[in-house]
Amino acid sequence: MKKLINDPNAVVQEMIEGMIAAHPDKLKAIPVTSVIVRKDAPVEGKVGIVSGGGSGHEPAHAGYVGKGMLDAAVAGEVFTSPTPDQVFEAIKAVDGGKGVLLVIKNYTGDVLNFEMAAEMAEAEGIKVAKVVVNDDVAVEDSTYTTGRRGIAGTIFVHKIAGAMADTGASLEEVEAVANKVIANVRSMGMALTPCTVPAAGKPGFELGETEMEIGMGIHGEPGIEKTDIQPADEVAETLVNKIFEDMSFTEKDRVAVMVNGLGGTPVMELYIIHKKVAEMMKEKGITIYETFVGNYMTSLEMAGCSVTLLKLDDQLAELLDAPSDAVALKK
Amino acid sequence: MKKLINDPNAVVQEMIEGMIAAHPDKLKAIPVTSVIVRKDAPVEGKVGIVSGGGSGHEPAHAGYVGKGMLDAAVAGEVFTSPTPDQVFEAIKAVDGGKGVLLVIKNYTGDVLNFEMAAEMAEAEGIKVAKVVVNDDVAVEDSTYTTGRRGIAGTIFVHKIAGAMADTGASLEEVEAVANKVIANVRSMGMALTPCTVPAAGKPGFELGETEMEIGMGIHGEPGIEKTDIQPADEVAETLVNKIFEDMSFTEKDRVAVMVNGLGGTPVMELYIIHKKVAEMMKEKGITIYETFVGNYMTSLEMAGCSVTLLKLDDQLAELLDAPSDAVALKK
Repeated sequence: MKKLINDPNAVVQEMIEGMIAAHPDKLKAIPVTSVIVRKDAPVEGKVGIVSGGGSGHEPAHAGYVGKGMLDAAVAGEVFTSPTPDQVFEAIKAVDGGKGVLLVIKNYTGDVLNFEMAAEMAEAEGIKVAKVVVNDDVAVEDSTYTTGRRGIAGTIFVHKIAGAMADTGASLEEVEAVANKVIANVRSMGMALTPCTVPAAGKPGFELGETEMEIGMGIHGEPGIEKTDIQPADEVAETLVNKIFEDMSFTEKDRVAVMVNGLGGTPVMELYIIHKKVAEMMKEKGITIYETFVGNYMTSLEMAGCSVTLLKLDDQLAELLDAPSDAVALKK
Repeated sequence: MKKLINDPNAVVQEMIEGMIAAHPDKLKAIPVTSVIVRKDAPVEGKVGIVSGGGSGHEPAHAGYVGKGMLDAAVAGEVFTSPTPDQVFEAIKAVDGGKGVLLVIKNYTGDVLNFEMAAEMAEAEGIKVAKVVVNDDVAVEDSTYTTGRRGIAGTIFVHKIAGAMADTGASLEEVEAVANKVIANVRSMGMALTPCTVPAAGKPGFELGETEMEIGMGIHGEPGIEKTDIQPADEVAETLVNKIFEDMSFTEKDRVAVMVNGLGGTPVMELYIIHKKVAEMMKEKGITIYETFVGNYMTSLEMAGCSVTLLKLDDQLAELLDAPSDAVALKK
């Protein structure tokens, strides 16, 4: 196992210490909990936004904590849901009196534990709302999930809900716009290589020297099919066409595009994928409003990518444009 | 070779097309040249700044083109110096009447070709100054280099020289501050895995299953030694101590720190490295002014990292803080 780590069982705690040391003006940790919070939390009079999940997807989610995005990110062990207690601590830390929105990726463990935390918080009088992101069009049910999985599209939920909260909107309004993003965002990914959870010490699955997998989950959950490695243009077509099959687009549509690297993919390759994605948008008459290319939601050192399309209306476009000082998505 | 590409010989051109498609509001390409230029270039009354080098180090250098950083980035073939003609085109495209600064990483081919381009430009009446970045303390001479190599510290030169140019400073002033950064910046890297140049189709060197290499160059040039993989803390100590051997630091010093991933390293591991780097700064009484953790200057999909320390005075700190809208380093 080739990793820059010390103790395979301490990677999350050490990573969090490194993040706080790197961004002490913006972030603080709640001791013992693996919860990273905005330095100035709770922000009075603003809906708090909490997300999180298993670690190993960095910069998700702690990289999105900051003014204009998340108020807290809860880091579970690698590829493991955080506990209800952790999420509860995050909710308490960010409640500024207007309630707290939980942005949950659709994995059964995450949904369950965030829901239990919500109940604990409500029992203490904190108003909590929940949205569940299920942008991955690859498969209907999966290893850890009933229904679709939540992947990189989640970052658009963070961005837009965070901007809405910054306007002073109510919990119901922030929840509504988060659900609007969820209704309009679709993603699809593929992998060239597996990745290794530090505590496991070996890859979570296998791919042959000339193989790739289409529709892979971000924890290595099985996708749709294993095939021989295809040229980048064909990979992009496969991913985008699968999204097109799921959601209809017309010539009037504007989209935000994210070409997301899974951790081990050179930025060069992501831009080569984007070239084809942009051509496909043009052919269909879809206007690209903004493009994000980079490592936004990773799977440790997995090589591969996902493509996300978010259909925008004026409200979503405006909120996407709003300022953010989160380390991993500055605007 | 597991890569998301179409034609191994067309990766640079296709990447550039993807970058322009992704950021059409900020970047434009000079047709045929593999030169990426600020959309609003040339900026009248501002010194133009040009950098570049072989491709494969993305987001360097095109990701640093933007207001407050570079005016143009010249992309050679993968790990290959751009030609004098390419650099000349970049100089012409960004000259706004106050002259052009070339920021060159110290590789013999780059130095030679940028110098020839400078002569071509001067023959047409454009004032040109050159600075050569040689921040890598690993080895004195190397495969493609006389003297030290230039690596991730180059990005601090882009940032600070770019901010200086934005103040309306003269070419001599911008050159002077770039040289001040070069005098105060040191880097040191290591690799866990090699990388594969697409047109070569196989890794540029070999590392055993349990081996790492200290002092590796960003093109796979040999480093100081191959050793068994060490814990992250020891790796960080090795890198930082080598920098400390080269440049003296005192308790009054303030530094900018960059923990740079080489392309295939999870962000989690970079933060674990940073944890130790920050501890070492604290032990020595050095104040960290700002920290950058991420993939800033990569070597395709190489796993590994470099650590860069830039000693700051008030002028450098202020220029580091200045705004930038470059895609890969927003401020």
